[in-house]
Amino acid sequence: MSDNELLKNSAPLPSVRRLPLYLTVLEEFEREGKEWISTTDFSEVLFLKPIQVRKDLAHTGIIGKPKKGFKVTELISTIYNFLGWNNLTEAFLVGAGALGSALLGYSGFQRHGLNIVAAFDVSVNVIGKSIHGKEILSIEKLPDLARRMHVRLGIITVPAARAQEAADCLVSAGISGIWNFSPSKLHVPPNVVVQREDLSSGLAVLSVKLGRFD
Amino acid sequence: MSDNELLKNSAPLPSVRRLPLYLTVLEEFEREGKEWISTTDFSEVLFLKPIQVRKDLAHTGIIGKPKKGFKVTELISTIYNFLGWNNLTEAFLVGAGALGSALLGYSGFQRHGLNIVAAFDVSVNVIGKSIHGKEILSIEKLPDLARRMHVRLGIITVPAARAQEAADCLVSAGISGIWNFSPSKLHVPPNVVVQREDLSSGLAVLSVKLGRFD
Repeated sequence: MSDNELLKNSAPLPSVRRLPLYLTVLEEFEREGKEWISTTDFSEVLFLKPIQVRKDLAHTGIIGKPKKGFKVTELISTIYNFLGWNNLTEAFLVGAGALGSALLGYSGFQRHGLNIVAAFDVSVNVIGKSIHGKEILSIEKLPDLARRMHVRLGIITVPAARAQEAADCLVSAGISGIWNFSPSKLHVPPNVVVQREDLSSGLAVLSVKLGRFD
Repeated sequence: MSDNELLKNSAPLPSVRRLPLYLTVLEEFEREGKEWISTTDFSEVLFLKPIQVRKDLAHTGIIGKPKKGFKVTELISTIYNFLGWNNLTEAFLVGAGALGSALLGYSGFQRHGLNIVAAFDVSVNVIGKSIHGKEILSIEKLPDLARRMHVRLGIITVPAARAQEAADCLVSAGISGIWNFSPSKLHVPPNVVVQREDLSSGLAVLSVKLGRFD
């Protein structure tokens, strides 16, 4: 096992979740032409304790310079490398409804190494149409295309009742990771990674917190 | 304090975060014409323990019927009422870039009581343009419009460096809740609620988990 793999295996997920935040700060420093960034810089923008910043960044394997901190460009490439975001991961999206269309139009993913190369649906109303420059294909074409293009990642944006079906289709097509935007939990083999995302749960928390101030 | 307020104040946030998941299952049952739903039904679809389902739902104040469970329509309206989603909350969106545009096009929010009534930006390149049927207005118009329309909620989708500025503008316009999609933590007065959302952190976790299987 390489050092990089060792680091990836040991980093706690809350630290991993914060790495995109560090990247955003770093990219702003880069745009402003700054060469160095300190633990304090991060801790002030992100409201994190300096010790937490040091721990989070240590997981990527980088070592800072006393008094100066980190070289901005070096830390950016270290984090990208750690997350595997320097290589574009090609993904298929299943479900071209409202949320699927929104994700197809979100250019931020590309910066984070995610390239949605094709989108699929079951509905004849959308198959053949183009959304944000991407043609929607029939789900029947997915298995064959996934194998030919060696696509490893699937994004599920179908209704809950259809999510398992979509996952089965992706799994049988040899996909190894699923980003699940549907509310259903998915049954997948142990070698397939699933990450569930739910926009509405943040909204629910916000609604209840707002209600507490009424 | 009313019973409903008491319930809202005591419900733990992890339970609140799960309520939209219950709603999605309920709405599918409703579409299929089913009248009753049991704890087991939820627990099977959502992979939650029955005791967790019972606890989560108890926070909304509903009491199930032995053997039958919950009336689908009644539980839907109880959860909507608990979350305040039966009344549309009007929101302003600040930042009409890629993510902001994606959110403007996401029809799922409307179902969850969120109505984005106007979108604002600072860039002359987008001001005056229409995105998903909504005209993008100059940020300068925000304070006056917020007061006239009694808008309580702001959604921030600007770059990190601009987020505090956007928050200050929203706060001074009398907004009481902010859904923050930028990576910056925001300084706001104690009577303003902030909920931070980060799409990329889910992607970071997925990337690292995928790397662990390489």
